[in-house]
Amino acid sequence: MSDAPQSFEDLRQLIAAAPAADQDALQAAQARQAVLTKPAGSLGRLERIAEWLAAWQGRHPPRAEKIQIIVFAANHGVAERGVSAFPSDVTAQMVANFAAGGAAINQLSGWLDASLTVIPLSLEEPSGDITQEAALDEAACLAAWRVGMAALNAEADLVCLGEMGIGNTTIASALSAALYGGTGADWAGRGTGVDDAGLARKADAINAALALHKDHLGDPLQALRRLGGREFAAIAGATLAARRSRVPVMLDGFACTTAAALLHAVRPDGLDHCLVSHNSVEPGHARLLEKIGQQALLDFSLRLGEASGAALAAGLVRAAALTHNGMATFESAGISGPGE
Amino acid sequence: MSDAPQSFEDLRQLIAAAPAADQDALQAAQARQAVLTKPAGSLGRLERIAEWLAAWQGRHPPRAEKIQIIVFAANHGVAERGVSAFPSDVTAQMVANFAAGGAAINQLSGWLDASLTVIPLSLEEPSGDITQEAALDEAACLAAWRVGMAALNAEADLVCLGEMGIGNTTIASALSAALYGGTGADWAGRGTGVDDAGLARKADAINAALALHKDHLGDPLQALRRLGGREFAAIAGATLAARRSRVPVMLDGFACTTAAALLHAVRPDGLDHCLVSHNSVEPGHARLLEKIGQQALLDFSLRLGEASGAALAAGLVRAAALTHNGMATFESAGISGPGE
Repeated sequence: MSDAPQSFEDLRQLIAAAPAADQDALQAAQARQAVLTKPAGSLGRLERIAEWLAAWQGRHPPRAEKIQIIVFAANHGVAERGVSAFPSDVTAQMVANFAAGGAAINQLSGWLDASLTVIPLSLEEPSGDITQEAALDEAACLAAWRVGMAALNAEADLVCLGEMGIGNTTIASALSAALYGGTGADWAGRGTGVDDAGLARKADAINAALALHKDHLGDPLQALRRLGGREFAAIAGATLAARRSRVPVMLDGFACTTAAALLHAVRPDGLDHCLVSHNSVEPGHARLLEKIGQQALLDFSLRLGEASGAALAAGLVRAAALTHNGMATFESAGISGPGE
Repeated sequence: MSDAPQSFEDLRQLIAAAPAADQDALQAAQARQAVLTKPAGSLGRLERIAEWLAAWQGRHPPRAEKIQIIVFAANHGVAERGVSAFPSDVTAQMVANFAAGGAAINQLSGWLDASLTVIPLSLEEPSGDITQEAALDEAACLAAWRVGMAALNAEADLVCLGEMGIGNTTIASALSAALYGGTGADWAGRGTGVDDAGLARKADAINAALALHKDHLGDPLQALRRLGGREFAAIAGATLAARRSRVPVMLDGFACTTAAALLHAVRPDGLDHCLVSHNSVEPGHARLLEKIGQQALLDFSLRLGEASGAALAAGLVRAAALTHNGMATFESAGISGPGE
């Protein structure tokens, strides 16, 4: 089997073979935390981030200099059902905006001195309307998955994943419901800003899709093919490739986390190399984080997507690594310990 | 009256004369948010930060390039009562560590490309033991306040304030109780890591101090003099100087927020030019944030002090300014708006 999956069975094998955390690197990071010039544990979550980075990079000291941001864009047939405040044309217009440097993620990428990779996935060919048919056939699903895997820079210290796709919070809601139960009303939110009638249409569309595909949703990969879309397959692929290449992952909001959650649905430790950057305003996100056992880093009421929350949190990961690596120890600085 | 207060009456006048937010700059920021290439409100707290920055800098676009970090260090007589896990010598040792570049704040300052100003305040002369006497006489309190005011770089775009002082979470608890009511048990936490017996000694010391000074705590400035310490007066001074010079302020954890809260206790809008960076593990901090009506930016279980949380949050302020200033508008990018 090559690294590029040609079948769903190949995908299953790749996921099953994903490597574990490096315990030596983790222990080295924990040992160093204990002797740095600060009260034990006083850097809280920054300490946990540095340890996580070491464990999943498989090295100590960990690094967070080379940051890659990948934004996958796609269009969705379900968008024609009035589930979004914006028309589908906006997906391609925003891809042009990314290229021109005018989007939020461009500014955040500049802030991080990161590399930004924007990948439009057959924008002229929306996924099938999930209330009527499967979103993708197997070939299209696998192709998007492979694009996601290939997009990763295996030399990056951290990768931030995100998406752009009018209509894709409807897709995320349907896919989350398939993976973790619940109805359209449980998972649907206002996305880019639909009104009450739009929200009701969204919940209805999700319920219709769940009913249509109900006999095929027990397998997460089939749920992805039927209810997902290209950017979801690509994000899952990039998340898996990152695990294999020991590149820790920062996930963005609801759509991005849903896509990566496919790996969690296949194996419970499938997302341990990922952190979730922020609590999205989308109500489905909080529900999903509970299901996958993740606590987001930021609570900034973001709901933009395009990896904006992931990039913001990546700055904090860099700060965690710099702090962990650069601080003096009690011994080297000649500082009295507790009770001395 | 010169800018350097010579009496508590001078202080009161300076506080009373503190300028208000610039409504023109605020409205310019709000107007720009509405036309940037994102769904309205989708950058959540980042949008609020950019608006706050413009309002208190009094200019649009706002900037967050030049960041100053100031750490004030002092010692406390009450530390001799077994209220800290570390001996008072550590204050001076940590000041040396700051100078040598080995502390957490040095790494975070490097991450921000900020200027770091560390000001030890008569470390060899601890404040009086508040269970027995006033912490400071008026001259010492005013001197520290003036040092704080003079420490500010009025050309900075943002100032991060923090402190280092063994025993000063006891001081922060006593001062918060004086300003906002409650007992030692309500406000005391484990600080650098005291055990249960240490925590009980801490609550007892706070109660003893509150009882001793009870007839003089109605005036926040007298509460500062009697229950505070030099770094508290200096932080209050720097916070006031920043307001006067239109430099927005990022506050650190419990001790820092308590010091700045003096301005809130004197006038309810006294802290409107400040944000609180993070929710400290110290239980008094959550109680204090409720009293002063602030919601912290980060929840990272930090309890280090030395402006570490403020520096971390300052990075996010810079990201907010860059995003606000650099994004394209719907019109300039040729992107369809909602429902177009």
